[in-house]
Amino acid sequence: MSAPFVVVGGDAAGLSAASKCKREDPDRDVVVFEKGQWVSYAHCGEPYFVKGEVDTLADLLSLTPEDVAERDIDLRRGHEVTGVDTDAQTVTVDGPDGTFEQPYGDLLVATGGRAVTAPIEGADLGGTFPVHGLDDAAAIRAYLLDPDVDALADVGGEAFVDRERVERYGAMTPPETAAIVGGGYVGVEMAEALADWGLDVHVFQRSAHVLGPFGEAVAEVVEDHLREQGVTLHLNEEVARLRGDEEGRVESLECYDGSELDVGLAIVGVGIRPNTELLSGTGVELGESGAVAVDEYGRTNVEGVYAAGDCAEDTHTVSGEQAWVPLGLTANRAGRAIGQTVAGDPEPVGHIAGTAVVKTFEMECGRSGLLPEEASDAGFEPVSETIETRSRSGYYPGAAETTVTLVADEGTGKLLGGTIAGTDRAAVRIDTVATALEADMTVGELERTDLAYAPPFSPVWDPILVAAKVLNGRL
Amino acid sequence: MSAPFVVVGGDAAGLSAASKCKREDPDRDVVVFEKGQWVSYAHCGEPYFVKGEVDTLADLLSLTPEDVAERDIDLRRGHEVTGVDTDAQTVTVDGPDGTFEQPYGDLLVATGGRAVTAPIEGADLGGTFPVHGLDDAAAIRAYLLDPDVDALADVGGEAFVDRERVERYGAMTPPETAAIVGGGYVGVEMAEALADWGLDVHVFQRSAHVLGPFGEAVAEVVEDHLREQGVTLHLNEEVARLRGDEEGRVESLECYDGSELDVGLAIVGVGIRPNTELLSGTGVELGESGAVAVDEYGRTNVEGVYAAGDCAEDTHTVSGEQAWVPLGLTANRAGRAIGQTVAGDPEPVGHIAGTAVVKTFEMECGRSGLLPEEASDAGFEPVSETIETRSRSGYYPGAAETTVTLVADEGTGKLLGGTIAGTDRAAVRIDTVATALEADMTVGELERTDLAYAPPFSPVWDPILVAAKVLNGRL
Repeated sequence: MSAPFVVVGGDAAGLSAASKCKREDPDRDVVVFEKGQWVSYAHCGEPYFVKGEVDTLADLLSLTPEDVAERDIDLRRGHEVTGVDTDAQTVTVDGPDGTFEQPYGDLLVATGGRAVTAPIEGADLGGTFPVHGLDDAAAIRAYLLDPDVDALADVGGEAFVDRERVERYGAMTPPETAAIVGGGYVGVEMAEALADWGLDVHVFQRSAHVLGPFGEAVAEVVEDHLREQGVTLHLNEEVARLRGDEEGRVESLECYDGSELDVGLAIVGVGIRPNTELLSGTGVELGESGAVAVDEYGRTNVEGVYAAGDCAEDTHTVSGEQAWVPLGLTANRAGRAIGQTVAGDPEPVGHIAGTAVVKTFEMECGRSGLLPEEASDAGFEPVSETIETRSRSGYYPGAAETTVTLVADEGTGKLLGGTIAGTDRAAVRIDTVATALEADMTVGELERTDLAYAPPFSPVWDPILVAAKVLNGRL
Repeated sequence: MSAPFVVVGGDAAGLSAASKCKREDPDRDVVVFEKGQWVSYAHCGEPYFVKGEVDTLADLLSLTPEDVAERDIDLRRGHEVTGVDTDAQTVTVDGPDGTFEQPYGDLLVATGGRAVTAPIEGADLGGTFPVHGLDDAAAIRAYLLDPDVDALADVGGEAFVDRERVERYGAMTPPETAAIVGGGYVGVEMAEALADWGLDVHVFQRSAHVLGPFGEAVAEVVEDHLREQGVTLHLNEEVARLRGDEEGRVESLECYDGSELDVGLAIVGVGIRPNTELLSGTGVELGESGAVAVDEYGRTNVEGVYAAGDCAEDTHTVSGEQAWVPLGLTANRAGRAIGQTVAGDPEPVGHIAGTAVVKTFEMECGRSGLLPEEASDAGFEPVSETIETRSRSGYYPGAAETTVTLVADEGTGKLLGGTIAGTDRAAVRIDTVATALEADMTVGELERTDLAYAPPFSPVWDPILVAAKVLNGRL
């Protein structure tokens, strides 16, 4: 019998791999080490828990520890893997009962990523949070509750929440002004959540636009929408430091340009980085992005060692190069494929097109593939066009302005990427672009695609087709 | 200077062609003959005008006659083309000032389709309508208005509506019970519209399911939804005759099985047929469907004669064979391409995948490609799977059950078609399938496509991906 399949990290990639391996090869021992207490939880749902649209933290768990146990997976929470010996094929584990060596036959590194808060001074003050984990979400929601009125029952009722932190924040006077440092996905989602609680919300973005990966056309639409919703945007403003009161709770924020703002809550998340420290000195190679380099089966350069999820790179559909795009589907898909491969039936982890969607208030945004700057970096000659059109037949109620950008390679007409923004079913339309990218279509082919039309759903020429027509006219 | 480009029919295909030709070749004379008074109007919007969601008939016009004139197109309304002489290259035109011969250099036949009401006896009674043209829509809405309460101002205020018909129906007592004979697109859309007016709505379908082209899985979902909305379905019931009262207004309906129903309004539309009578005896060939056969540029077998829109076939994306799928985008796209070709820059009319979407009440449905029976007819070995999944992350509010069917060829894994139904952004997701069909993807390739995920829009595995995964597992 082969040595166990050992998985480091009990979230999307790790537990997808463990579950699939066990299903395909029930006799194989599968051990999952998770350093925290939460497993298989939906990061992406945290803003909606904070907002209160999701009632309990338990709603955000795809699998409970009991579910995992039922699958006959040996899940060890509170166990941190601190070292890997790829020669001996063992990992060093710090658990509640001390340190031990665990042999592995196959090893999956699914250690995820972490929120980057540096170099902002004061990011460890009270009332200052990354949004990276259920304990953060619970603490933020507790802080927003009025201790004189609201019960804390729903906020981390589970046995393994950081209860002390929840109760401490629950006892505080709720904040009135919030600063969100970093206008990425989580930043704009949190803007919606905090505004819904009645806070005066300020978003600080050190570059010229929020939602960098979505490009300028989407950003401008989103920025207008955020302002209409009462959110104050501070673009081209870099936060230097947060200052605390005498109890160590954040009370103001200062930018490098000297401007200041009194704030009672700060969300600090200027980016995420892959957790790869475990592999330093092991000979497992990282890619240019700093995430683990893998082949089409999720294998690292070291025999028997795989990586997947937010700590790993993948092959980009359009560029064919390695890229790091830490998102949920990628983690689930790669984990599942590696589980199948480990079980003896090799399955590619699939490519990524960098497809992403995000909602803030009523605005829906999507992107897929390469935008012009990325396309140039990958060696293409990008041409792009942005169009605005209606989401439905003009006469049908609910038609909304929809902004589409498509990017193509000038020489070949190959579609390289696209973005979309609008309030009416805009986001899911990016799947048309993602599918066209997967199929390596030209813009001309996309223009001739027989997309759906009925007055409640789209104009005769779907917004994506309009953009394809305009872009193709330039090629 | 070449003889004029003559277009027969002033709706989507005809005016798209005329406009494009004139734009590309401004010196070319372009003459459009339209036998009625309405031009360039949105058939698809008629149920929403009846419902009252669209205020005026004018809202349904893409172009007014004045718009057309501004494009320097010689539009002749009230002119019926009654003959074509392909040797002399002339058409015979019956106009208000008599009959004349019009020479053409290029001829586009864009005569559209007509609603089929036969063989139902009494389909010409008062209170009985096809829904095929703005005059029908105006008359139905006038009939629904209470003459003691409502004004007729919005109903066909335009100069060229059939005002006498509108006023006659406007003066009648509104009906209380409606029969819709034929549960196709227009049938289920009209069920929504008439129920919204408070009518007791009955849909009669002679086969086992409504919405035949969407397949059984969608039909069952739609039927449940219609019943929940209070619509009575009479499946497997064929209407034999409508009976009128002494004033010639419909008062009851009788099926072949002898069942009867008192009705004050009947919508009769058991299908549409292409208008090709004009071409009989001309040597222009029709396809097996009875619509005009054309090549990839919309050319018939006769030099200089083109056909497009609801009277013409197109090449099917999946089967590669000629097919007749009369829908709006096809007409617009083919017309535009032919206009460009006639102007000297040949452009293919594009293939059709039979992509269609429809909404009834809150239910959204989509279909694209070939369903199993069609696939068998086209020589494939179809395998299909139907799955049900949620439209969003389970914890996110508004997630709705979504039913997806995908069809693939057993031997090659080639995707052949798919359908979808659900109340939450279901319809536009069919564009993923349409795009995959255009690109000739396999189900395995579709399964590995990097589609969008965020909790408000989809589960981690999009419903289309879930279906692809299940179907691929069977191949």
